[in-house]
Amino acid sequence: MQDIQIHVESICRAAKEASRTYGSTSTAEKNALLCAMADQLTADSKAILAANAEDLAAAAENGVPKTMLDRLKLDEKRLAGICSALREVAALPDPIGSGEQTIRPNGLVIRHVRAPMGCVAMIYEARPNVTVDAAALCLKTGNAVVLRGGKEAIRSSMALVESMRRALVARGFSPDLIGLITMTDRAGATALMNMRGLVDVLIPRGGKGLIRSVVENARIPVIETGAGNCHLYVDAAADLQKAVKVAVNAKCSRPSVCNAIETLLCHRAVAEKFLPMMAEAMASYNVEFRGDEATRAILPDATPATDEDWDTEYNDFILSVRVVDSLDEAIAHIARYSTGHSEAIITESMAAANRFRNEVDAAAVYVNASTRFTDGGEFGFGAEIGISTQKLHARGPMGLYALTTDKYLIDGDGQVR
Amino acid sequence: MQDIQIHVESICRAAKEASRTYGSTSTAEKNALLCAMADQLTADSKAILAANAEDLAAAAENGVPKTMLDRLKLDEKRLAGICSALREVAALPDPIGSGEQTIRPNGLVIRHVRAPMGCVAMIYEARPNVTVDAAALCLKTGNAVVLRGGKEAIRSSMALVESMRRALVARGFSPDLIGLITMTDRAGATALMNMRGLVDVLIPRGGKGLIRSVVENARIPVIETGAGNCHLYVDAAADLQKAVKVAVNAKCSRPSVCNAIETLLCHRAVAEKFLPMMAEAMASYNVEFRGDEATRAILPDATPATDEDWDTEYNDFILSVRVVDSLDEAIAHIARYSTGHSEAIITESMAAANRFRNEVDAAAVYVNASTRFTDGGEFGFGAEIGISTQKLHARGPMGLYALTTDKYLIDGDGQVR
Repeated sequence: MQDIQIHVESICRAAKEASRTYGSTSTAEKNALLCAMADQLTADSKAILAANAEDLAAAAENGVPKTMLDRLKLDEKRLAGICSALREVAALPDPIGSGEQTIRPNGLVIRHVRAPMGCVAMIYEARPNVTVDAAALCLKTGNAVVLRGGKEAIRSSMALVESMRRALVARGFSPDLIGLITMTDRAGATALMNMRGLVDVLIPRGGKGLIRSVVENARIPVIETGAGNCHLYVDAAADLQKAVKVAVNAKCSRPSVCNAIETLLCHRAVAEKFLPMMAEAMASYNVEFRGDEATRAILPDATPATDEDWDTEYNDFILSVRVVDSLDEAIAHIARYSTGHSEAIITESMAAANRFRNEVDAAAVYVNASTRFTDGGEFGFGAEIGISTQKLHARGPMGLYALTTDKYLIDGDGQVR
Repeated sequence: MQDIQIHVESICRAAKEASRTYGSTSTAEKNALLCAMADQLTADSKAILAANAEDLAAAAENGVPKTMLDRLKLDEKRLAGICSALREVAALPDPIGSGEQTIRPNGLVIRHVRAPMGCVAMIYEARPNVTVDAAALCLKTGNAVVLRGGKEAIRSSMALVESMRRALVARGFSPDLIGLITMTDRAGATALMNMRGLVDVLIPRGGKGLIRSVVENARIPVIETGAGNCHLYVDAAADLQKAVKVAVNAKCSRPSVCNAIETLLCHRAVAEKFLPMMAEAMASYNVEFRGDEATRAILPDATPATDEDWDTEYNDFILSVRVVDSLDEAIAHIARYSTGHSEAIITESMAAANRFRNEVDAAAVYVNASTRFTDGGEFGFGAEIGISTQKLHARGPMGLYALTTDKYLIDGDGQVR
């Protein structure tokens, strides 16, 4: 246990120390580094794919589910995709150093600028692409990164990191800028959560259990990501055609992701008309409905919804449905069960739309559009390190800006107070 | 223990619920409320001062130190000052609702706007002015507030909150927008630190012990404030006259505050000349020097500095002094011991200034000016809720903006992905 602590600490300390001078690297040099990393990964593709094949074989042997195997798998095409994503990050504008200047009456020049965080740590699942994405976004913003990926991908992670480190060294940077925790059991993650003073921010990416464990146990700053118990409310003044279209998209286009809806709330005034329309439109997806009493009076095939249903992120073709008497009741339901990710109303009433926008407390609040748009790419950020569901620092899809902090630079000529 | 939990939870729940509709109150109404609060506090001054007198008598009886008694004390003039501060907050620009709009190729309109946090909690010491300041800043930004002040000020806090609540009710708002935890023992604070889902951010303001306890125990988002182990580095290329002036100001003008310096680092090339100049200039303040060997060779009256000295925020007329061989050594010392508050260099070398700015990791980095300027008022913010020493969300002096979060408002016409 203590050995693990010492090992993780040595990786974090080396990363943190390397970050100190790396932080002031010019944008051009950082971009050239990212392109060099893409070239190196391409050059090392044989070794990387071989390591990945070993991971896959071991995972299959251990009975890892198919969806996870698919996320773990690399091939020539996927590796090429990872490399082109690296070049896209290189092409994005660099937030570091941008900011505002004020001059105080006493002549002090105060610049408020974006600065690197220092050392960013990520805990994530067995997804090789995240290893490269996270490194790219952190290095672009002048940060060192410490990675702790899922155990099923450990050989892939090691090969990818080794290749990226080769590019760092070739361009005169410290290889410690990319740290990899190779202890993939819980102790490695726990040690990382306690690196006060060495890790400036920890971003967990993965399932609900991982996120909760990090939020409750970490003694370093954390950005919560991903939990998405999202709602669609069909108002009394809704255009029901729009409502059907949006409901089908928000539930069925990709139910496994965090911006899909889990519960549909429907105003009583339109429930008898709308719910059968929706059920018909979702029939080809075999969506299972779990409804309250009023819903089941209209959709007799729906199973009874329990309190637990309102609280559950199914990530599946299941939709809980509740009939409400008013906008207030819809807002109250959302306030109680929402994870603050994405919430939507379908309405033609300006008053209802405005109340929903103001009173619903979520990263993204939609009027007449699908919650599925909550995504860095769809928002036009060009890159995404995760979707924050907390209110401090970063909320919603996080681009490069979320990986920076601010700094006041004050220049004087001997001023005293 | 469970009773306390239930009591604190009921206050936080009421505040959180009241915040939901309060958040969309117009700026004009919020400003009128703050002015009404100032009027009400003035009208209730007799009761407030009587309560304060009881606090003072009890505190004196319990042997509370004089400096704390002074901070606790209210009189007509100080209460008038508190009320005029309220009116100043009313006059500040309201950040809520401001932001940027983009229109995506598919026609979605995405507005990224400032939104209230919801419910803000503060734990602070026995300072009646903080009770009113914190309430004003939170209400101005559309938030509810839950206050937990020091036990010595409990009667004053109750009288102030009662008066402010009267103003809330008179203007048609819920009195629950200002909650007061009247349990001033540790259990009340601990309960508050666990109000997940009810308190959106907790800001501790006070001594090192309080801040550390909150950071280590809180299970809700926290903004760390105040710890200031600040350094002044006198470079080989320093203008020594400026260096003396800044050193005296940064150490002696108000040693009890967090932006005063605790350690002076001096380049060996100028140490023999500079240190005696500084010692002479500080003589009238009776500053105690604690030095490394090289310092004590130059200032024989200095006592030997131990490792603990470099780590100590004296908040007193004590200065630890170390002679360094290079800018690198100065930066490394600061990296090791700084709390990330305010750090300064005195130099006429552009290269040294630039390296110091880039490589020193602190909220405020000064070139040729005193660290004492790190303050909301001095930075031109008009109000300050504390000085953040963390990197997430807010760094340095925190004005109204730090009490807000962001929100994406997406308007469509039935768009799906």
